[in-house]
Amino acid sequence: MRILVTNDDGIDSPGIYALARALQPIGEVTVVAPNQQQSAVGHALTVAVPLRVHPFERNGTPFGHAVTGTPADCVKLAVDALLSERPDIVVSGINHGRNTAVSLIYSGTVSAATEGTLLGIPSIAISLDSFSLDADFTYAAKVAAWLAPIVHNHHLPRGVLLNVNVPAIPQGEVKGVRIAEQGSSFWDDRYELRHDPMKRPYYWLTGTYIPDGHTGSDDLLLTDGYVTITPIHYRLTDHTMMDELRTWGVEGSF
Amino acid sequence: MRILVTNDDGIDSPGIYALARALQPIGEVTVVAPNQQQSAVGHALTVAVPLRVHPFERNGTPFGHAVTGTPADCVKLAVDALLSERPDIVVSGINHGRNTAVSLIYSGTVSAATEGTLLGIPSIAISLDSFSLDADFTYAAKVAAWLAPIVHNHHLPRGVLLNVNVPAIPQGEVKGVRIAEQGSSFWDDRYELRHDPMKRPYYWLTGTYIPDGHTGSDDLLLTDGYVTITPIHYRLTDHTMMDELRTWGVEGSF
Repeated sequence: MRILVTNDDGIDSPGIYALARALQPIGEVTVVAPNQQQSAVGHALTVAVPLRVHPFERNGTPFGHAVTGTPADCVKLAVDALLSERPDIVVSGINHGRNTAVSLIYSGTVSAATEGTLLGIPSIAISLDSFSLDADFTYAAKVAAWLAPIVHNHHLPRGVLLNVNVPAIPQGEVKGVRIAEQGSSFWDDRYELRHDPMKRPYYWLTGTYIPDGHTGSDDLLLTDGYVTITPIHYRLTDHTMMDELRTWGVEGSF
Repeated sequence: MRILVTNDDGIDSPGIYALARALQPIGEVTVVAPNQQQSAVGHALTVAVPLRVHPFERNGTPFGHAVTGTPADCVKLAVDALLSERPDIVVSGINHGRNTAVSLIYSGTVSAATEGTLLGIPSIAISLDSFSLDADFTYAAKVAAWLAPIVHNHHLPRGVLLNVNVPAIPQGEVKGVRIAEQGSSFWDDRYELRHDPMKRPYYWLTGTYIPDGHTGSDDLLLTDGYVTITPIHYRLTDHTMMDELRTWGVEGSF
């Protein structure tokens, strides 16, 4: 099994290191990841400037390819130009922080898996529910190494990826694996108006996370201590609204 | 009607100028847009650095607020910090080039409308099917000015936005308005390997658009000469795949 590993926290982050190490015993791992942190980049693609690629070492050993681009760039470039053979699976992560609910729209970790999916490759995004600098990615990496072969052996329909979230609690306290829905939690955002030393104003984003209480949602199950797996698609047409729009009489007019 | 206008081509682009001018007779227009071109940024949000805002003039007249951020940043910042009252509608565009099919995932124009939708504000993304430097946005701007009050007067369900594409043909040749599905066209991408004057390699993204031939798709109808309106949602859970995953036996295990 050829495994392409990427992330959005950057190739030097602890999460991708734990992930690559856990996957090495089960397949041929290639790491292609951003050379710097890329959180909240969404599904950005670099088109206006070229991409550069540099070999990246960890502990004196070759680790992977560092790309001057986004997570989506990394997957596209890896598959099209860097890898001699097409990967069997893309695994993106392990993200430092949960990727649930509305965060899926902003997440670089998920966007890398989405790009894999768009290229017709089964793809998984995996995130650890911790922002702590000394977060332990060991168990989340084990989850990835358990799930990747399962996804490889089963049929994952074209256009669907798996988004996995892992609680940051001792392994013995994890309640198990649950298939979850994307929740409806959201950020209640505020911009703080500040002034620089030259007295010029600037705005800095801050916010409070408002979790939903919907049974079966990714956020609720994750907080309850479950590993959550959410299958995600990108069929964005709202068919109910198509019918509704027809009653507005806009079609044919103008 | 308070109208927030934004885009991803930048506040100095012709598309947003045509849009703002066409909307001024029907409402109170505020322009808050990126200070530079932001195509293919996806739903990026600036979190690591602060945002700055500068007044922007066109032809010696105040035109709007230029923001050192992405389209999603502009909408969030406008609603939270810059506008004294919440807008009744967000109109994003007019994009230079169609936003259909898979492009919706990468589009900054659509992401601005998505951000409006996430904030609970009815939102429209509008794009003109032309990359030409001397593209005429007049008709597309008329379409926006026709549709915005309709959206304002009707109920647009929370979480749904309208993605509009306008053909770049003389108004008399436009066949009418059609409600369309997101198509399945895609880019067949290639990275060109080049070398800089220092002989160092770099990669530049290039590609060929492979249009789908699906009746009722945004791409096909747009190419046929119709203005297309596609309602878009962000309920990304794939429920069919949830059922399928249960048959894999992953739940409860590990």
